[in-house]
Amino acid sequence: MSELHLLSPRGFRAAGVKAGIKASGKPDVGLLVCDTPTSAAAVFTTNKVFAAPVLVGREHVRDGRLRGVVMNSGNANACTGARGERDARRMCAVAAQALGARPQQFLPASTGVIGHLLPMDKVERGIREAARRLGDSRQHALAFADAILTTDTRRKAAAAEVKIGRARVRIAGVCKGSGMIGPHMTLAGPPAPPHATMLAYLTTDAAIAPAALRRALQECADASFNAVTVDDHMSTNDTACILASGTGDARVSSSSDVRKFGDALRQVCQSLAYQIAADGEGATKVVAVIVRRANSDQAARAIARAIADSPLVKCAMHGNDPNWGRIVSAAGLAGVPFDPAKCALDLQGTTVFRRGRPLPFDAAAVSRSLRASEVRVELDCGLGAHGATLWTCDLSKDYVTINADYHT
Amino acid sequence: MSELHLLSPRGFRAAGVKAGIKASGKPDVGLLVCDTPTSAAAVFTTNKVFAAPVLVGREHVRDGRLRGVVMNSGNANACTGARGERDARRMCAVAAQALGARPQQFLPASTGVIGHLLPMDKVERGIREAARRLGDSRQHALAFADAILTTDTRRKAAAAEVKIGRARVRIAGVCKGSGMIGPHMTLAGPPAPPHATMLAYLTTDAAIAPAALRRALQECADASFNAVTVDDHMSTNDTACILASGTGDARVSSSSDVRKFGDALRQVCQSLAYQIAADGEGATKVVAVIVRRANSDQAARAIARAIADSPLVKCAMHGNDPNWGRIVSAAGLAGVPFDPAKCALDLQGTTVFRRGRPLPFDAAAVSRSLRASEVRVELDCGLGAHGATLWTCDLSKDYVTINADYHT
Repeated sequence: MSELHLLSPRGFRAAGVKAGIKASGKPDVGLLVCDTPTSAAAVFTTNKVFAAPVLVGREHVRDGRLRGVVMNSGNANACTGARGERDARRMCAVAAQALGARPQQFLPASTGVIGHLLPMDKVERGIREAARRLGDSRQHALAFADAILTTDTRRKAAAAEVKIGRARVRIAGVCKGSGMIGPHMTLAGPPAPPHATMLAYLTTDAAIAPAALRRALQECADASFNAVTVDDHMSTNDTACILASGTGDARVSSSSDVRKFGDALRQVCQSLAYQIAADGEGATKVVAVIVRRANSDQAARAIARAIADSPLVKCAMHGNDPNWGRIVSAAGLAGVPFDPAKCALDLQGTTVFRRGRPLPFDAAAVSRSLRASEVRVELDCGLGAHGATLWTCDLSKDYVTINADYHT
Repeated sequence: MSELHLLSPRGFRAAGVKAGIKASGKPDVGLLVCDTPTSAAAVFTTNKVFAAPVLVGREHVRDGRLRGVVMNSGNANACTGARGERDARRMCAVAAQALGARPQQFLPASTGVIGHLLPMDKVERGIREAARRLGDSRQHALAFADAILTTDTRRKAAAAEVKIGRARVRIAGVCKGSGMIGPHMTLAGPPAPPHATMLAYLTTDAAIAPAALRRALQECADASFNAVTVDDHMSTNDTACILASGTGDARVSSSSDVRKFGDALRQVCQSLAYQIAADGEGATKVVAVIVRRANSDQAARAIARAIADSPLVKCAMHGNDPNWGRIVSAAGLAGVPFDPAKCALDLQGTTVFRRGRPLPFDAAAVSRSLRASEVRVELDCGLGAHGATLWTCDLSKDYVTINADYHT
């Protein structure tokens, strides 16, 4: 799979260029284009404070059709009022003009600092240059993947292939996200419970109807991007978008085909989400919080989130400290049914607490087992048949350093 | 006021002793006794995982009468099963025996590490010694205030005097709390929404009926202890308890008397809560988050909490960074009505954002103004007539240091 990239699904071209928006001089404008678009879907932040490109993107994707995505990093175009909205629309118009399409066929996105107006001269020059440089090689895919990054320390990409009937469907994606991560994205409906900027762009060469694509994207986002948290701060700009070119041989239409497609899409999204947790600001490890046998899906998610978002738990994980009391007490404050007398807690496979009572364990050995790139916290609630998995990371001094001096 | 202390209200005696529970050898057993008790009330953690002393305390305070409080620090007696419950009851029995009272007349409390059985030999010796040392001097008050501390770097106390009719009522309190702070304590009812160990003990010489005392305590706790957060991790042991000796000249019975009493109690509780935020683990400043003109009390509290609990906001405050985008976006993720186009945000008195648009401001000057022991973040939602104030602290590298290596 490793040789697959964002542009492996047929029908796509991309580019990433340096437009001078980032002070660092790194790539900061990306363009992803589908030459023969069929279907598109996107999920967006449910923050009441959403950026101008989210407002415009919701509008443009409503009919389930897009020609492409135009984005910048280094500036979020959030909290920028009417001027910000004009700028987001202008980004689409410039891309459309360069490619002979309509502005409404582009989904805009921005990521970076909040509250600053976009330097539109740079942005526009960048989009035009990106349009001239479009291509479908691996290098083009990498250039786009780089252009979407902000505080990320590394590029994030994933891909999968699945057979549907006799045809082969390719699904690929790239994403960015490191801090301000706690997405809870939905299609475009009313806001949901509270939970970065994260951006994800997915491509597939399947032919699939917009409605089926939308459902598949929401389900996969819930099991991936919406299940990752670095600091539980849902951003103003979170967006995940999938474009289906329909240029492959596969038509995804029967319910079993859609399920197969969804399974492969979920794999790609989960790999991307995991990479976000692993690259969380200051992170030294991924913490997988696995809740089992809760009495509802909602309760399982709430318990997993209370554990994953507790600074005390995250600091303990950073210190390789098997301080399980913080984990059990975090579960108890989730505001959903939970009974310590019925639960069991495993840290890296060692049961440390069961049915209301601490178990004797070799603290030094468990502490050593926590020195790993992935730590598994598994809580069996003993109440029902519902589970949830969340990915988070540890909380280190580097997180504080990165975030105490970002703006000024 | 400064000369008033926990034992200024007449009718109380206290002691704090070193029982050897803490490895540091600091004081770790406290006893507070009312010789002629009239009324008592207590609010407790709403965490589903609550410590044995909380279970026992709820039972003992139910009739609104107590003779005193018996507590240890250095061990939370939480997640300790049936043995833990026996130990909490035993603490009350030992205190009662030493003082010629009934076990049910004592409220037990414990604070410290979770999941370890109490060293009952030390605890019992400590309680008996404390009973022998009881006294009503300022030194006795200080000894008790010290015995309740854990990671606190300083003692916390407050007091007030109020005239009711012609009589003078004294109200005083001490508390502890530095990390695992995000209380949401209620009288004893069903659990409430999610939000350390904090313990607070209040004394008054007023004569007041248990029912009125309970109502006053809950109202004051909501406006004080339940409005402070360090890391939004409600502990298994949070408890605030007030004892009214009735030995003063004042009878608090009419509704206007109860209101006056409540106002004074609120002052004491708010001072104590503020001291907890100021002594938050690793904190260098208090951040007062003041939300105005939200469309309901619940919305105001949710917005204030989303801001106060955001690691990104807390790191920005640590770095004296006027990164207001994090504050506005945190407000937007609270899951309650909020419209950036109608709001205004002030940092230390400087308006930085109004009606959906950033305002020009002198970033260096505002950053300088953030170098203060108290920072005020004031958000006017422009939607209604409801407000809330929360006290939190900044998030520093020291918080991580303290919490990455506490247990092992």
